[in-house]
Amino acid sequence: MRLALEDAGAPYEDVARHPGGMAEMERLLGQKKNPPFAPPFLVSGRRLIAQTANILLYLGPRLRLAPSSEAGRLQVHQAQLTIADWLGEAHDVHHPIGSGLYYEEQKAESKRRAADFLANRAPKYLNYFEGLLPRGGYLLGRRACYADLSLFQMVQGMRYAFPRAMRGLEKEYPRLAALHDRVAERPGIARYLASDRRLPFNQQGIFRHYPELDLK
Amino acid sequence: MRLALEDAGAPYEDVARHPGGMAEMERLLGQKKNPPFAPPFLVSGRRLIAQTANILLYLGPRLRLAPSSEAGRLQVHQAQLTIADWLGEAHDVHHPIGSGLYYEEQKAESKRRAADFLANRAPKYLNYFEGLLPRGGYLLGRRACYADLSLFQMVQGMRYAFPRAMRGLEKEYPRLAALHDRVAERPGIARYLASDRRLPFNQQGIFRHYPELDLK
Repeated sequence: MRLALEDAGAPYEDVARHPGGMAEMERLLGQKKNPPFAPPFLVSGRRLIAQTANILLYLGPRLRLAPSSEAGRLQVHQAQLTIADWLGEAHDVHHPIGSGLYYEEQKAESKRRAADFLANRAPKYLNYFEGLLPRGGYLLGRRACYADLSLFQMVQGMRYAFPRAMRGLEKEYPRLAALHDRVAERPGIARYLASDRRLPFNQQGIFRHYPELDLK
Repeated sequence: MRLALEDAGAPYEDVARHPGGMAEMERLLGQKKNPPFAPPFLVSGRRLIAQTANILLYLGPRLRLAPSSEAGRLQVHQAQLTIADWLGEAHDVHHPIGSGLYYEEQKAESKRRAADFLANRAPKYLNYFEGLLPRGGYLLGRRACYADLSLFQMVQGMRYAFPRAMRGLEKEYPRLAALHDRVAERPGIARYLASDRRLPFNQQGIFRHYPELDLK
């Protein structure tokens, strides 16, 4: 969602990072009419839109990061929802038992899940998206869509969380690695990555680096 | 997805249940142009659309199960994506370590995850949707949308998988229970539920009844 806004050069504010921002977030989460279930959500004029994929569905055509045809928009959304599944699984690697428990309370289970994720699930997703990508292009060909930006973020996150495993895996998925580099060079993205608006990966996020969960 | 088609009385074929259907599914999963990552998917004319929420996004306005305004469609999709998260967590209760492993290989972990799910996550989702529902109505008021049908399915699935826990929980969520009954009485849904097209819940599905995972 940040990547889409940055790529398009659209002005936005990250409310949670403002002084008093958390209180504002809580207020919006508690609103009477159609509250979000959880962050993140987007306030755009009088609209409040939650669920990342839904926000991108809304932003896509407005930021010229989705085709105008319905078929094209459904294709991009389908890719985004598949990325969301992959992201959810990447999160559950370090929280297989409960999202409200600490990692340390589910470390043994995390090790088992990480082994399965790296051996079976991550290659399945990587292989799928490698197959969708044309050589030298974006998912839809010459024009980038928001799902390309999300794939960039997945590659970055996977490298952060599982550096040893990804070194081996990436060799098998050259189009994904090339897409990563192509996205990183887009002017809005390059500017963002060099700015202090880019949040570094950390141990509170979806992607976390626990060496014991990576390949030996 | 089946509920939406049945509610609208739209003709459809469940290819996987036909003789030779599995081979046809495999063929579509392997198609060159924009293949799905996994079932389920919908073939509609020349389109192939995957990801349940994406399919419902496509079908919603066509089956008159989504508003015509963009704001209304985003609101319904937001609810659907939140239900998809809930459904994913309900699945992971019996598969916390790996979707490719047997339940018996992850039974101890399942017990831990089930306890957290029933104590924390299920009430959070139930409470959220209870709060969205108007008294005596559907999510959007007088007209049903596809997310109402999905909520019906969630209540049915939760009752099947966790009958003891749900007996206690449901008392606290009367609007959801009333929505369940209201959906069940819709002519297309009532016809479907009484037909042999309705697949009974079973131990290969997303919702499974393992008594050891339910409340004591």
